[in-house]
Amino acid sequence: MRILIAGMDGYLGWSLAQHLSARGHEVAGADALLRRSWVEEMGSTSAIPIAPIKERLEALRAHTGQPAPFWNGDLRSYDLVERIFREFEPEAVVHLAECPSAPYSMIDREHAKFVQLNNLTTTFNLLFAIRDLSLGTHLLKLGTMGEYGTPNVDIPEGFFELEYRGRKDYVPFPRQAPSWYHWSKVHGSNNIMFACKIWGIRATDVMQGVVFGTRIEGMSEDPRLRTRLDFDQAFGTAINRFSCQAVIEHPLTPYGSGGQVRGFLPLRDSMQCLTLGLEKPPEPGEYRVFNQFEETYSIHDLAEIVCKTASNIGLDVGIAPVENPRAAIEKQNHYFAPDHKRLIELGYKPTHDVANEVQDMLEDLLPQRERIAAHRRALLPDVHWNGSRHPVGFIMAGSDNASRDAQAELQT
Amino acid sequence: MRILIAGMDGYLGWSLAQHLSARGHEVAGADALLRRSWVEEMGSTSAIPIAPIKERLEALRAHTGQPAPFWNGDLRSYDLVERIFREFEPEAVVHLAECPSAPYSMIDREHAKFVQLNNLTTTFNLLFAIRDLSLGTHLLKLGTMGEYGTPNVDIPEGFFELEYRGRKDYVPFPRQAPSWYHWSKVHGSNNIMFACKIWGIRATDVMQGVVFGTRIEGMSEDPRLRTRLDFDQAFGTAINRFSCQAVIEHPLTPYGSGGQVRGFLPLRDSMQCLTLGLEKPPEPGEYRVFNQFEETYSIHDLAEIVCKTASNIGLDVGIAPVENPRAAIEKQNHYFAPDHKRLIELGYKPTHDVANEVQDMLEDLLPQRERIAAHRRALLPDVHWNGSRHPVGFIMAGSDNASRDAQAELQT
Repeated sequence: MRILIAGMDGYLGWSLAQHLSARGHEVAGADALLRRSWVEEMGSTSAIPIAPIKERLEALRAHTGQPAPFWNGDLRSYDLVERIFREFEPEAVVHLAECPSAPYSMIDREHAKFVQLNNLTTTFNLLFAIRDLSLGTHLLKLGTMGEYGTPNVDIPEGFFELEYRGRKDYVPFPRQAPSWYHWSKVHGSNNIMFACKIWGIRATDVMQGVVFGTRIEGMSEDPRLRTRLDFDQAFGTAINRFSCQAVIEHPLTPYGSGGQVRGFLPLRDSMQCLTLGLEKPPEPGEYRVFNQFEETYSIHDLAEIVCKTASNIGLDVGIAPVENPRAAIEKQNHYFAPDHKRLIELGYKPTHDVANEVQDMLEDLLPQRERIAAHRRALLPDVHWNGSRHPVGFIMAGSDNASRDAQAELQT
Repeated sequence: MRILIAGMDGYLGWSLAQHLSARGHEVAGADALLRRSWVEEMGSTSAIPIAPIKERLEALRAHTGQPAPFWNGDLRSYDLVERIFREFEPEAVVHLAECPSAPYSMIDREHAKFVQLNNLTTTFNLLFAIRDLSLGTHLLKLGTMGEYGTPNVDIPEGFFELEYRGRKDYVPFPRQAPSWYHWSKVHGSNNIMFACKIWGIRATDVMQGVVFGTRIEGMSEDPRLRTRLDFDQAFGTAINRFSCQAVIEHPLTPYGSGGQVRGFLPLRDSMQCLTLGLEKPPEPGEYRVFNQFEETYSIHDLAEIVCKTASNIGLDVGIAPVENPRAAIEKQNHYFAPDHKRLIELGYKPTHDVANEVQDMLEDLLPQRERIAAHRRALLPDVHWNGSRHPVGFIMAGSDNASRDAQAELQT
């Protein structure tokens, strides 16, 4: 299948290019390389060194024997999107070309606007290109489990039968996103759902859990093939950040009580799921939503797993909770029971072994201790959801900090 | 109260400036006058002649004896928003500075993007200005009943108690908007709800029904005080369009069967409701949703009312349904039962007399027959929801057109 990966230079995009090529698909990519500068803006860098795009592509082409066409440009330009569609004629587009960070979107007005407008515009351009140039093309769009927030009821996969005052309808499940970034994903989901309805586009909207991991099969052979791994507050995700903290023996820093529960999945499972979505596409006009994660864990439990795995290989790591910069919105004790059956019905086989995955990660990250230590300041957050920006403090049991944090929590 | 009307040059904005001034409020306005050029772009003009903004403001100031400061500029510029906030220090902002047209947003990619990005950006700028410059300021934002779509269950006012698989939560009601424009309003509602939650902003989000009418009390004295009245496919709303058709004895043109049911309210009631929302503001941090309309009617019934009222004053008018350009999304026979209690609880006294209001409209519009007739081509739609653009045909009973239309309806 000819598959365009929009956002191929990113954490998932670069892994997916290799995974799909290995399965015999014809892959092309586009990217404006913005992720590299965003992470730099956050005072950080990828823990795993990544090659310049030119070298990455040389390695990919040598490794796969495929031409792997690539457009280095910004998909906010419709002219570029149109050119790619005409030249590559994709049968599927994986849309990873959005700014993926909640904290980045919460920095200030300009960042909030940038994230929402950037994400809306790229999605619009892809939808219109499909409508006007290639109506059968399947759009597989990366959303996030965060779109749903943490309601006090089960979370279905996108839609549910609503019963209200004695009548019924099958409707979209209410979204309660926790950041400007997460709302940009909701806006995108809504726009795609509408495009499917009026134009007959086929789309899969993936409500992805939090991904972790440093590798997929085949990736380690050539250092130019490795994917990035971020540990800063904005582009690093929980387990990835904890693992980077662990290898430099920095305390692991859950936010607040760490009682926040989220869905997680290893990078290799994310590849498996996205591939299933691509190889078993929806019908024309169908707008299909998957909740894509393996299992739910609390942040505290994950910190414990990383801590223990690190101890097993001789690292001296503790857990030191910090004030929750998201206290204005984030519940730290809540119900969380999302469905995740549809991908399993399609054949998804979950890995079911976080500790093992974390051990691989620590092995891959140990040689990068100096890089991580050199950006140690990026490990602690300073972007607060209430609009302020200052480094968080550690919470000492029974201290003023803890009561302040608890109080902030109560006010939400 | 110091009230900033963002979008003061529009249909509602210009009326509201007069209505609020008459009630003793201190009014300021901002507008980039884009509505004038959008309507021109649609090959049309306001049926009621409107004065250039300079003359409008002179009349308003003379009439009210107030300074009525005005900024002629685009609220997509945060610098302008900031300057207005610093100079006027509004206690409330009425946000009417969005592009309000579904058909305009459906013209093509550029119009779709323009409407969504314009509407998102102005709302962002107002939210951030309130947060950073004037946290207590009440944001009263114009939404639309169209955000909800036409679900097969009752529609509450914004939120409802969801019961799902034996558990309960109080959550936003699912939105199923029928155009890029309507989705822009949903995106805005979501962003405002979130801003209230994290920053403690107070906001009222008005899910307004379709407004009709040519005047409010006091408006007719001076021709420079009259508000605009559009009849083109994009900026004219149902009753306003029918009334303009009636005065030139053009057949009234409901779309399809005319079975679409919507909430409507006269312009004077819209003023009454918005004023109630302003004078009885929500608490800090409260995000309040009103469904603002008087009664629901089918388009067909409204055509009948206009037809009959026109006959009573000697006009020869028939009803001639046209193909529904929105057939790709719009149900023509559906359940529609939205709540609308909250404004009535605040003191809203509905007019309850569409025929009388229509008679006033016909009187105001009769002197404008030549203006309307000169733009007769603007009376029929050509922007179709499936992406094509061509004039709609009339539906002859039992004809191919009718069956085509019925078929298109079935495919939705």
